[in-house]
Amino acid sequence: MPMPPHTAIRPSPTQVSLDALNHTEVLLHRVCKAREVTDRVSGRHFLHAGPPLALADIPGPMRGAIIGGLLLEGEVASVAEAEAVIDRGEVGISPCHDAGAVGAMAGIITPSTPVVVAAAGAIRTFSPLNEGIEGAVRYGSYDGATLARLRMLGDVLAPALDEAVQQSEPLDLLALVAEGLRRGDDCHNRLVATSAALLTALTPGLLRGSADREDLARITGIMARNGHFALPFAISAAKAVTLAAAGVPGSPVVTTMSGNGRTFGIRVSGLGDRWFTVPSPVGNPVLLDGATLADATPTMGDSMIAETAGFGAFAMTAAPAIMSFVGGDMAQAQRITSRMREICAGTSTRLLIPGEDFRGTPLGIDVHKVRATGIEPVINNGLAHREPGRGRVGAGITPIPVQPFIEASEALTADTGRPTGKDRA
Amino acid sequence: MPMPPHTAIRPSPTQVSLDALNHTEVLLHRVCKAREVTDRVSGRHFLHAGPPLALADIPGPMRGAIIGGLLLEGEVASVAEAEAVIDRGEVGISPCHDAGAVGAMAGIITPSTPVVVAAAGAIRTFSPLNEGIEGAVRYGSYDGATLARLRMLGDVLAPALDEAVQQSEPLDLLALVAEGLRRGDDCHNRLVATSAALLTALTPGLLRGSADREDLARITGIMARNGHFALPFAISAAKAVTLAAAGVPGSPVVTTMSGNGRTFGIRVSGLGDRWFTVPSPVGNPVLLDGATLADATPTMGDSMIAETAGFGAFAMTAAPAIMSFVGGDMAQAQRITSRMREICAGTSTRLLIPGEDFRGTPLGIDVHKVRATGIEPVINNGLAHREPGRGRVGAGITPIPVQPFIEASEALTADTGRPTGKDRA
Repeated sequence: MPMPPHTAIRPSPTQVSLDALNHTEVLLHRVCKAREVTDRVSGRHFLHAGPPLALADIPGPMRGAIIGGLLLEGEVASVAEAEAVIDRGEVGISPCHDAGAVGAMAGIITPSTPVVVAAAGAIRTFSPLNEGIEGAVRYGSYDGATLARLRMLGDVLAPALDEAVQQSEPLDLLALVAEGLRRGDDCHNRLVATSAALLTALTPGLLRGSADREDLARITGIMARNGHFALPFAISAAKAVTLAAAGVPGSPVVTTMSGNGRTFGIRVSGLGDRWFTVPSPVGNPVLLDGATLADATPTMGDSMIAETAGFGAFAMTAAPAIMSFVGGDMAQAQRITSRMREICAGTSTRLLIPGEDFRGTPLGIDVHKVRATGIEPVINNGLAHREPGRGRVGAGITPIPVQPFIEASEALTADTGRPTGKDRA
Repeated sequence: MPMPPHTAIRPSPTQVSLDALNHTEVLLHRVCKAREVTDRVSGRHFLHAGPPLALADIPGPMRGAIIGGLLLEGEVASVAEAEAVIDRGEVGISPCHDAGAVGAMAGIITPSTPVVVAAAGAIRTFSPLNEGIEGAVRYGSYDGATLARLRMLGDVLAPALDEAVQQSEPLDLLALVAEGLRRGDDCHNRLVATSAALLTALTPGLLRGSADREDLARITGIMARNGHFALPFAISAAKAVTLAAAGVPGSPVVTTMSGNGRTFGIRVSGLGDRWFTVPSPVGNPVLLDGATLADATPTMGDSMIAETAGFGAFAMTAAPAIMSFVGGDMAQAQRITSRMREICAGTSTRLLIPGEDFRGTPLGIDVHKVRATGIEPVINNGLAHREPGRGRVGAGITPIPVQPFIEASEALTADTGRPTGKDRA
C-alpha cells in the first residue's frame, strides 16, 4: 500500500528541531555593550539567569551581581544604597532567555555589561564577556577591583575586539566549538584550547584596528590568561541554534535548560515559552579548599545551553582533561556521553568526538526519551557561594532531576493527543 | 643477605637516561638566524637531516633544499649555478644532530636559516622555523615565493619573536608539549592547538616589542595560519632532553632516531656518537591526491626526535584527531601507544595522556627491549617528493625496522660484557 505522499516526505517535528540544532550557521557578530543590542535592559531593569523569579527570592550571588550592576550603571553611589534599592523592590528583573541572551552563573546583564553577540540569519543572541576567575560579577562579587575589571572589559577590550571582528573573516561559532572538541575542550567548563583558538583567529584583526598598542598588550594578556574567555562565544551560539529549534509544534526537543539558584527550568520546542521547573539541584561538586556543600548556591546560570545544544557534558568523551576538574575519570566520561545518547533525538554531524572515531555528540534532548528511560540529563557547571560577594566555591557534574522533562512530555502528549514515546518513524 | 650499599643506591644507567629525558627543564631561549647560534655552518657548508651521507648521495628534496640554501645565502645567482656548485662537490654537509640541531624533513640549515633555540642548562639546541604547508625549503622547494617566505621569516618574524621571548615569562617548552597533549596534539604531526597556545603566550610580548604594527599583523597572521608553527619549538626541546640523556655508559636508551632519505639511523646513550643504520623505510603513508608511493622519498628528517623524547606517535592516544591525517582509528592509536610501552624504559611523569586517565607517555626506547620483543618503534612523519622542488606528497605512521636496535643492543652487550635484557632491578 503506498504511503500518503505528505507524511512520507515531511520531516517529523523532532527532525525539524534536530536539523535546526545541527545545521543552523551562527556567526560572531559583535562585541559591545548590552544596551546596543537589546532594549530589555535599563538602569533599573536587569536580565538574570534561569527561569523567572521575584526580586525578593533571588539567591545571594544574584543579589551581589545586582549590587554590582547598580554600581556599574551609576544608579547608586554605595553598596548600602544598592542594598536599599533592592530591598525597596526598585529594580526590575526578567530572564535573559526571554531577551535572546544567556548569562553564565548569576547572569545579570545591565545596559553597560559587555556582551558577545552572535547572529544566525535574523536571530541575534548575546552573552556577557567572561570576567576571568578572580572576582566576577557573574559569581556575585561587586568589589572595586571586580567593577574596574568589568569596566575595562566594556570600555577597552570590547571595542577593540569588535573592530577585530569586523576586520576578520566571518567566524563560524559552531566551527569554533567543533574545533574546541577536537582540542580536548567540552566548551562549557573547559575552553582553554578554544580560547587560544579564538585569540589566534582575532589577533591579526586586533592589530589592524585602532586600539593603542599598550591596550592591545593588556587585551591580549587578559585573553591569554583566561581559559574561559571563549565561553560566551560558545553559549551565545548555542542560544542561537536552540532559538532556531524552538517553536516547532509537537516537537519534544528541549530548547532551554537553566537555573536561577532556586529553581531549575526547561522549555521544550513544541511547548512555547512555558517553563517546567524543579528545585535547583546542587549535584556532587568538587569544592574549593575550605568550602562545604552548604556554602554552595544550587545550580544557577544559563550556560547549560551548551548541553542543550550538544556539547558540554554531552561531549564529555571529547574532553578527558576536564574530568580532573569536575571529579571523575575517562570511564565516567564514556558512561555520561553514552547515557546522553539514550535521551537525545539524534547525533550531531558537526560536533564530532575524535576519541570516538569522530562520532557526533548526542544532540537534542527528547523529553519523551527522558520519560521513557528515567535517565537524568547531566550538565557541567560551576557553583557560587550562597552569600553575595563571596564568589566561586566549586564546579561539578550535575544530574538534573527528570520531573520537569516528564511533565513536559505529558503536556506535549496532551497537546498533540498522541501517545508518549517516539514520534518519528 | 644485605645488598652492597652502592649498587642499591646508585640508579641504573637506564634510569639515569630516563631521568634526564623526564626531568630536564628546557626553556625557549631565542629565535634568530642559525649563524648566531652555531659556527658549524657557512655559505658553502650546511647542516642536513639524518645520519651522515655524502653529497653525491643526497636524495632529491635535500638537493632542492641545498639549491634553496645557496640562493638564500647569495652564493649563487641562479638555480643552474646552484646545480653546478653541487655537482662539482663544492658544498660541504654534515648532520644537524652533530651540531645540536634538528631539522624537519630535508633539515638543511644554512647561516641565514631562521631557527628556534632551546636552552637546558648549558645545552643549546635549535631547529628551523616552520615555513608552513605551501612551498617549503624543508620539502625541497626553492622557487622565488618559497625563498621570499623564508627571508620574511628570518628578517621580520624571527626578530619580532625573539623580542617577544625576551619580553615574556620564561616559556617551558616541555610544559608547552604537555599542554599540547592535553589539547589533542601529538606535537609531531598535529600541533594546531600547541601553535595556538604558543601564539597566545607570545602575543602580549610581541606587542611590547619594536616591530611595527603592520608587520605584527602579518606575523600573527602567519602564525595563526600555520598549524605546525610549534613543531621546531617542540623538537628543539626534544633534542635538548635527549642530549641530556646521552653519554651514560651502559645505557640502552635511544637518544637519536633520524633519516636522510637514504638511511635511517639511531644512536644510543651508552654508545656515544656511533650510528646504527638501515635503509630508510617508506611506511604506509596517506598520499596527497595524485601521488603514488613511488613518488615518495623514504623517511627523511630529524623530527622523530619527538618519539625519541616520548611524544609524537608514542602519545598517539592523546591525539585521536591525528588518526584521520595519518590514516587510522582510535583502536589503532591505542595499539600503538600500548606497544610502545613494551619497548620503553619507563613512563613520562610530565607528558600525560588525559584519555588514559593521565597516564604518562611511554618514554625512552630501550634497545634491549626492542631486541627482546621484536616490536618496531613507530613514528609519525611527513613525506617529500623524490624530485627536488616538488614538495610534500603525504604523511603517515611509519614502523622502523628493528635491525639497528638489535645491533645496538648487541654492541652494548659486547661493551658492557653483560647479557642483553633488562639492566634494572
